[in-house]
Amino acid sequence: MDACVGYAALDSSGQLSPFSFVRRATGQDDVAFKVTHCGICHTDLHQIRNEWKRSVYPMVPGHEIVGIVIEVGSKVSTFRMGDRVGVGCRVRSCGKCKACQKKAEQFCAKGVFTYNAVDIDETITYGGYSSHMVANVKFVVRMPDGLPSDAAAPLLVAGITAYSPMRHFGMVENGKHLGVVGLGGVGHMAVKFGKAFGLKVTVISSSPGKEKEAKELLGADEFLVSSDKGAMQRASNTLDYILDTVSAPHELGPYLDLLDLDGKMVFVGVPDKPFAFNATSLIYGRKLVAGSLVGSIQETQEMLDFCAEKGITPTFEKITPDYLNQAMDRLSKSDVKYRFVIDFSNGL
Amino acid sequence: MDACVGYAALDSSGQLSPFSFVRRATGQDDVAFKVTHCGICHTDLHQIRNEWKRSVYPMVPGHEIVGIVIEVGSKVSTFRMGDRVGVGCRVRSCGKCKACQKKAEQFCAKGVFTYNAVDIDETITYGGYSSHMVANVKFVVRMPDGLPSDAAAPLLVAGITAYSPMRHFGMVENGKHLGVVGLGGVGHMAVKFGKAFGLKVTVISSSPGKEKEAKELLGADEFLVSSDKGAMQRASNTLDYILDTVSAPHELGPYLDLLDLDGKMVFVGVPDKPFAFNATSLIYGRKLVAGSLVGSIQETQEMLDFCAEKGITPTFEKITPDYLNQAMDRLSKSDVKYRFVIDFSNGL
Repeated sequence: MDACVGYAALDSSGQLSPFSFVRRATGQDDVAFKVTHCGICHTDLHQIRNEWKRSVYPMVPGHEIVGIVIEVGSKVSTFRMGDRVGVGCRVRSCGKCKACQKKAEQFCAKGVFTYNAVDIDETITYGGYSSHMVANVKFVVRMPDGLPSDAAAPLLVAGITAYSPMRHFGMVENGKHLGVVGLGGVGHMAVKFGKAFGLKVTVISSSPGKEKEAKELLGADEFLVSSDKGAMQRASNTLDYILDTVSAPHELGPYLDLLDLDGKMVFVGVPDKPFAFNATSLIYGRKLVAGSLVGSIQETQEMLDFCAEKGITPTFEKITPDYLNQAMDRLSKSDVKYRFVIDFSNGL
Repeated sequence: MDACVGYAALDSSGQLSPFSFVRRATGQDDVAFKVTHCGICHTDLHQIRNEWKRSVYPMVPGHEIVGIVIEVGSKVSTFRMGDRVGVGCRVRSCGKCKACQKKAEQFCAKGVFTYNAVDIDETITYGGYSSHMVANVKFVVRMPDGLPSDAAAPLLVAGITAYSPMRHFGMVENGKHLGVVGLGGVGHMAVKFGKAFGLKVTVISSSPGKEKEAKELLGADEFLVSSDKGAMQRASNTLDYILDTVSAPHELGPYLDLLDLDGKMVFVGVPDKPFAFNATSLIYGRKLVAGSLVGSIQETQEMLDFCAEKGITPTFEKITPDYLNQAMDRLSKSDVKYRFVIDFSNGL
């Protein structure tokens, strides 16, 4: 089963083409699974277009991968044939460093990304736009009963990127008020998690047109247009938490002003310009600003179980593989609510 | 006893002169005390010189005030004649707002500063460079046995400014590594508290000449010169906490780089230029930056009791009132280790 078929970018044009390659045989600590679904993350678009200047071609993208186990290594006792499983954006970490010891292996400096990375055997990793996947069991999560495979895919990166900071920084206290900046794959999940945690949720967006969907589709309580200075000012000191999911450069100050005493703002996007703020905007109110990076495997499993228990699913558009290039094109125009999920269950 | 004598700035020259004034009679919720000691905070220098452009003259500065109770109001049951007490930088808050309800009254928008502020009776408040003080009992702390009155004075602002964020943000875990940026009144207390909490403490200063005193006088474990790029780089990812006490404009990035995974940096100074940082410097390592403002009355009492229990005292230079103007002059040149305390116990 080492022969694998998938879709690869062959150059920085952004086009994906059918591609045959070989995956390693299932090692003793590995789980192999047939890929049934894969989410399309904005990272995939950046990477196939070489926008981060570190792309290696041919590149098989995809790091929100869900499938069904077809083989397990001799030392694997936690999964068996037929189990539904998933792999997110990492497939390896050193296991020894402080981050790994702390079960925060997403910060391991020796971590290996699911695709476009050099694995410990010197091969280039290939992602989930493919017929099957082989991964070390430590990076495989279990899909709980009741969580559909297609809906689970976007949780593996977009979902955990919202969930992890909310849990880690304690932004989950029932009755508190959460602001979500940006309404993409991560932001829309933050709204859903916020409501599940019992928070009042205000979406803050530069697009006035998103108010209806924020409230009606996602269940947000309030909507703020970030460019509406009057509205932003009236909302001063009303939020307990802010999750900022925007990667485009933007000011920090106006958002810090929205925070109430002891307010917390966490950002997960990486704008290519520095943030600036006045010391007073944190000192008066004992506010904090923090960063967060996806989440750990342990947190991912916890999130999946939480979603199954609470009936939380992403809002997504399911596509077949033949629509892949069109989907990429639409994604580049942010024309998706809020994630494309490729359905490979009827073949590639 | 309403007639009071003290020292006042009469204009922005920075000179202090003997000054007679009237304090209110002791109200039913008030405590009146003879001032025996008062710390000289850098704020006093800024204020008498009108550097913050909100000075009202004549101004009696001083907000690290310690003394002996001479009268208590009819509704005061927690203090009695002869008790040693203290007042810090606030003498009033509304008691109703969210901050007050949360016992974080230092953030009350209606709070009244100990001097150079308008009190609820429309009078201007006068500080501790004076023969006696009258304050609402809610803003009076008790000096525990074993904590000398002179040593206690600098704790009431400098001490609590270091102690409060360390407690509030959990920068007290035994064995962790604290960086203290700046070695003034607040910074030197942060070193002492750090050692008392069982932390490894590194002082980070722009002055290489402070290494000896940091280690020998204050007990710091390590010393870093902030302009030594090689040393700063070698110290990357080694600190769990940073308390930044510097009010002069400075970069944030080099300090964030010193923080390890889940590191926390809190600043208590207010540089007059914005801080800037790249999102990645917080995201990679899940680091946080926060601000803190002195501390609450409850925390101040807790700190005083902690200091008495652990035998922690500031390092200070005691002066008599006739040295006041010379002390101010030396303070303006940062020529003090690390606080002047005026001893009024032999009269003004």
